Amino acid sequence: MPRKKPTDATPPRRTADRILDVSLELFNRFGEPNVSTTLISAELDISPGNLYYHYPAKEELINRLFERFQKALLPLLKAAPDVRHVEDAWLFFHMLFETVWHYRFLYRDLNDLLSKNRLLEREFQAVLQAKGRAVRSALAGLGGSGELRMHLREAEPVATAMVVVLTYWLSYEYVRDPRHALEPEQAQAALLRGAAHTMSLLLPYVDAAQREHLQALIGPYARVPGAG
Amino acid sequence: MPRKKPTDATPPRRTADRILDVSLELFNRFGEPNVSTTLISAELDISPGNLYYHYPAKEELINRLFERFQKALLPLLKAAPDVRHVEDAWLFFHMLFETVWHYRFLYRDLNDLLSKNRLLEREFQAVLQAKGRAVRSALAGLGGSGELRMHLREAEPVATAMVVVLTYWLSYEYVRDPRHALEPEQAQAALLRGAAHTMSLLLPYVDAAQREHLQALIGPYARVPGAG
Repeated sequence: MPRKKPTDATPPRRTADRILDVSLELFNRFGEPNVSTTLISAELDISPGNLYYHYPAKEELINRLFERFQKALLPLLKAAPDVRHVEDAWLFFHMLFETVWHYRFLYRDLNDLLSKNRLLEREFQAVLQAKGRAVRSALAGLGGSGELRMHLREAEPVATAMVVVLTYWLSYEYVRDPRHALEPEQAQAALLRGAAHTMSLLLPYVDAAQREHLQALIGPYARVPGAG
Repeated sequence: MPRKKPTDATPPRRTADRILDVSLELFNRFGEPNVSTTLISAELDISPGNLYYHYPAKEELINRLFERFQKALLPLLKAAPDVRHVEDAWLFFHMLFETVWHYRFLYRDLNDLLSKNRLLEREFQAVLQAKGRAVRSALAGLGGSGELRMHLREAEPVATAMVVVLTYWLSYEYVRDPRHALEPEQAQAALLRGAAHTMSLLLPYVDAAQREHLQALIGPYARVPGAG
């Protein structure tokens, strides 16, 4: 009897994962509305029937990718109470932007995805609420260490504006340069600008010593290239 | 000889306008990707051929509506140098939000529209740049009257964050409540919240007397309902 190859037991699972990986790449690159399941199966060199066997509808691909996104994002957000210093906040927002970048197709066509997909319609509200709670928690931590001075009534609109910048920065970059902004080679610069603009909303509230420090951290990225 | 009715000379022009009005209404209501030319002609009770006679492609409808949007927006932005006082700024941003609301379909699916439409791809960048110049000009005016104290290096990221909030506030409201946020009866409340959050970014920079005034203007709207 021929020896069973170690991979024999797993191919269906692995194909399912490969399909997700390639779908994510194509969605990110071209936008979900412009990627058909036919294109995905062609890119994978599998039959449409095989794709259908794993994911009977495009919506299921989107839902599984959204669940991956949640699994990446929520543990990050849970780390918000550990933010005590300006440096922590810079790292925290940078990591949030990296996750958003990795699943940027969700943000690129968010409104349209929400209007067509019940899971996203329901769960993306929860994502925004979790972002809001995390930002408020980070602000409280920075307040606790004395690096941030902010009244409660000031914190609320600042937190909201930070969530808006966090959520829409990549879209803003896309409008400014649709042909290049979402290409992989732009990632690092775009993430840093996003994190810098999110953090810049704290500048007026950090104490004098920390203000110089924060300015030094974000200064190089807080300008948008080509803002005339 | 029967007397010519006064409207006889104009019907083609009027039909073309009616088509635009109805397209704008449907795009705003359902999102441009979800509105076909067939739906538009059915809503107008005209034949698809008649619609085609006026606008041979859906893209032309979008382009003409975008031009209307530009014609409404650009004169408003040109008024930015007249902003001298906190009250002026409040009125200014409120009016900007009214214009954005009126053409909200452009903002709802902005990234996808940009990827499919060359006029928008080129011109929307110019819209963002014009918004940026207008905001910086308003900040300079407020500085000139002494109501705002802001270093130049502070003004740049604040202006950028204001443009991001101005551009994406309605999308943010949509994610929070996809079934109702873009319905006409929500307009007034949504616009006021958008203007309030845009203006709230100025709070740390206005002088003490004006801060109370600004807080009184925006306070009732600077909370997002249901933000837990």
